[in-house]
Amino acid sequence: MTTSDATSPWALDPEATKRLPRGRHKLSRDQVLASQRGRMLHAVLIATAKKGFGYCVVGDVISAAGVSRKAFYEHFRDFEDCWFQAYETAAEVLISTVVSATVEADAAGDPGRATAAGIRALMELIVEEPAVAHATIVDIAGAGPEGLKARQRNMHSWADLMLITFDGVKGAKPTPERRLQALAAVSIAEGILVEYLVSEKTDELPAVSDQVAALMSGALTQ
Amino acid sequence: MTTSDATSPWALDPEATKRLPRGRHKLSRDQVLASQRGRMLHAVLIATAKKGFGYCVVGDVISAAGVSRKAFYEHFRDFEDCWFQAYETAAEVLISTVVSATVEADAAGDPGRATAAGIRALMELIVEEPAVAHATIVDIAGAGPEGLKARQRNMHSWADLMLITFDGVKGAKPTPERRLQALAAVSIAEGILVEYLVSEKTDELPAVSDQVAALMSGALTQ
Repeated sequence: MTTSDATSPWALDPEATKRLPRGRHKLSRDQVLASQRGRMLHAVLIATAKKGFGYCVVGDVISAAGVSRKAFYEHFRDFEDCWFQAYETAAEVLISTVVSATVEADAAGDPGRATAAGIRALMELIVEEPAVAHATIVDIAGAGPEGLKARQRNMHSWADLMLITFDGVKGAKPTPERRLQALAAVSIAEGILVEYLVSEKTDELPAVSDQVAALMSGALTQ
Repeated sequence: MTTSDATSPWALDPEATKRLPRGRHKLSRDQVLASQRGRMLHAVLIATAKKGFGYCVVGDVISAAGVSRKAFYEHFRDFEDCWFQAYETAAEVLISTVVSATVEADAAGDPGRATAAGIRALMELIVEEPAVAHATIVDIAGAGPEGLKARQRNMHSWADLMLITFDGVKGAKPTPERRLQALAAVSIAEGILVEYLVSEKTDELPAVSDQVAALMSGALTQ
């Protein structure tokens, strides 16, 4: 997952998380805005991972991003607007990483191997920027009813991916029992990710990746 | 789990969640304080379940509990003090319910049945007061770093219970692989409880209790 250039795949606006040079420069106003926006989206997640959703305010975002309060409100309606834009962007990166890796490996017709590829890609991404992962995977649960619904949508998408991987798209509608198994599988992954994120030992995740995948597959092959 | 008297097992001070009669009465000042305290501990969890941890303030607690702001600060240092006292009390009820039911059923030497008894008792308790369960199981993740540590301690206790149930207390220290399996088992339970709590369909939990137990046991018998 590691890329050679300096822009992280988590950069919430491509090329836009670096600070602009001070003083007069030739960048257009659009570029300035894009840069500010990317820095604020990044900053809100970093601050959340450190303090918790309920303890973050606009002041945390602007001081970390090095922008003015006025600039904040040029981009965002309020704190929540900024937070959920950042969350949706980061969550999309996480989900699409799992989906691509799973679908790619699934060509071999081995759902266990496809699951392992998906979770491995996800863990490698988390190692790259644990604070963004912490906000997206852990702190989302503290973002009130809207956050809980967003978290649930993403858990359902992931469970659906597991069902497609194990049962294919052709079959009938999954039974409630099968849905619960898929939910159990993604709950295993989530619970273990939260444990490693909260303990600040994400570096050890890749070492348990295959065991986590086996546990997830186990829930779907009982 | 249902008891015949009006006091819920979740009553955060025994006999103390009912409002006192208005006007002059013969209750001692200690009884008044206990009653106020119990109502506030209950109110802070109910408010959190509705709005999310980050959106709750002292005003939510005092208006729901029907006490003055002065009374709040006679009992609690600040919002967090109240919240974590309420959380610890409720979490202890949850954990001790699972432990008692598991240990009691474990006499038969069947870890799968013991696990099923524990999760069933837990689910029956959750059905009784879903908002308190929501705050304790879901919203704790939004209570900042202190909340995340508290959540983690309780997940570890539960995982330890699973290890004792399946492996006994006699054996050697569990391997990292075994610990991860136990964490997977309790993550299944937590993930499914969160799903039903967030969807407000806790009434349907007892119907899936045995399947959840089988999935949990499956993680430990792979």
